[in-house]
Amino acid sequence: MTAASAPHVHQPMFERIALIGIGLIGSSISHAARRAGLAKSIVGSARTPATVATALKLGIIDEGYASAREAADGADLVILCVPVGLCGPIAKEISPVLKPGAILTDVGSVKGSIVRDVAPHVPAGVHFVAGHPIAGTEQSGPESGFAELFDGRWCILTPEAGTDAAAVEKLKVFWQKLGSNVEIMAPDHHDLVLAITSHLPHLIAFNIVNTAAHLERVTDSEVIKFSAGGFRDFTRIAASDPVMWRDVFLNNKDAVLEMLGRFSEDLIALQRAIRFGDGDTLHKLFSDARSIRRGVIQAGQDTPAPNFGRTPAPATAKSGDEKA
Amino acid sequence: MTAASAPHVHQPMFERIALIGIGLIGSSISHAARRAGLAKSIVGSARTPATVATALKLGIIDEGYASAREAADGADLVILCVPVGLCGPIAKEISPVLKPGAILTDVGSVKGSIVRDVAPHVPAGVHFVAGHPIAGTEQSGPESGFAELFDGRWCILTPEAGTDAAAVEKLKVFWQKLGSNVEIMAPDHHDLVLAITSHLPHLIAFNIVNTAAHLERVTDSEVIKFSAGGFRDFTRIAASDPVMWRDVFLNNKDAVLEMLGRFSEDLIALQRAIRFGDGDTLHKLFSDARSIRRGVIQAGQDTPAPNFGRTPAPATAKSGDEKA
Repeated sequence: MTAASAPHVHQPMFERIALIGIGLIGSSISHAARRAGLAKSIVGSARTPATVATALKLGIIDEGYASAREAADGADLVILCVPVGLCGPIAKEISPVLKPGAILTDVGSVKGSIVRDVAPHVPAGVHFVAGHPIAGTEQSGPESGFAELFDGRWCILTPEAGTDAAAVEKLKVFWQKLGSNVEIMAPDHHDLVLAITSHLPHLIAFNIVNTAAHLERVTDSEVIKFSAGGFRDFTRIAASDPVMWRDVFLNNKDAVLEMLGRFSEDLIALQRAIRFGDGDTLHKLFSDARSIRRGVIQAGQDTPAPNFGRTPAPATAKSGDEKA
Repeated sequence: MTAASAPHVHQPMFERIALIGIGLIGSSISHAARRAGLAKSIVGSARTPATVATALKLGIIDEGYASAREAADGADLVILCVPVGLCGPIAKEISPVLKPGAILTDVGSVKGSIVRDVAPHVPAGVHFVAGHPIAGTEQSGPESGFAELFDGRWCILTPEAGTDAAAVEKLKVFWQKLGSNVEIMAPDHHDLVLAITSHLPHLIAFNIVNTAAHLERVTDSEVIKFSAGGFRDFTRIAASDPVMWRDVFLNNKDAVLEMLGRFSEDLIALQRAIRFGDGDTLHKLFSDARSIRRGVIQAGQDTPAPNFGRTPAPATAKSGDEKA
């Protein structure tokens, strides 16, 4: 606000953003970054040539590469958008081409293992700040991304002590411009929080869908037809990418096992209340659960619309095997 | 199609429908019945005077009563829309006023116990056909109902052997005109199917929400802020009516305990795979779960839109306690 201030000219935050992996999250970052004008160019790589071709066709990337190394070369922001288990090997691969002053980050759902696997490969002068946007859908691939995915959601950054403060701040502003709120946290605490808010919910959803699929006295067709009683919600979460989730559980073992232990303990207490017909315990516990829902809605993390605002099924929608 | 055919005049299916209980399901039945012109008049009762007043004000009922007995008097269709545990006592209460030829039905989520509790009170000449529409939202009360709730969903009827076939057929047509598909099933099989498609999903959702609320190392505020990773979906289901759900678990104990046993067995196998880092087992299991989701969508029982078609949060939505 002084006479010496430069006139306001829109200057993208980054010259060249490299997306290593162009699935739901990578493509959504591109859409949101273009919406906010954050990059002069966005390039990317994927292991599957068809993914690169689709991303080019959809305008998600300006240049596409078969290798992470080529994509990362010369970028001032490199974002690893791959399953957690691939972050270490890719960091090793791209290490020689990382530009001094560049920021290296990721979007993985586990932070402790990624910091451990990636940090040793980061050259001096490159700023590594691990990150995790708490946003997604059950869909995968470059076609599934959209610019609004991060709007109003949280992104957690887990920089190590001693990381360049300006780089952390720049990445924070980047995520804010993508639409997110940003929180800084230690990697281990992130992994504990996400174990309960994301990893355990997915594990339970995968599990009940598989339990339902292997019953002898209830057919798959019945499970599907009568899924609107609650089960269908779990099938959505259980449709998420299997490789991504395998890597989450392999890399956040301790926190997940801790939360799973708590969950199972509580479930056994509920089972006991059912077995002995203890209605008061059931009623109290079910009533308590409502207040957390109110908190989630007040915090803007879910829609207040009934059934998530699902549109009612059209009157013509019918199952193919109506019997009665 | 003969000269003797009566000219087509729209004749409502029922003269007087009595809704005993006017919550989400009762009020939705009214809206859908009015949409299809199925009743000359719809009356109702509720234990809470405010509920009756609201239902009258919203036009859900034409006449409101404080007692089930007054509402049922003279009705040719009586629908019990109350928690499962109340069906027996109410059947006993209304028994003396039930009109010969009337159909008595219910909408409870458990069928074996309702058939057992209600049937002894049904006078000769009254046709009791238990029923259960597999539809709902997490909301409760007369304001929460809407005409489209049953469109494309399934309604299961569980008449006992020997029930008047014309009465069963008439109730089936009624539900079809409300928008449902209808299936006939034995009460015990219904209870087994619903134990996996509805009761266990709710139990698990209630349980994880309570587990999350009682952690020491993760705060409620963190659980809420970072709930978009999956947990928020469970909070929706866990916001359902606690009295209704208490009664479900008290009255479908055996089937729920059987399904819970299977679920826990499978969960322990998953836990073991995580503990020993068995990625192949995890990957196979997570991949298998996707096909059930495809079936649910093909059967028209859920939307194919990502995240249930939740609208993205507006860019202004922010949690009140942003720290970073």
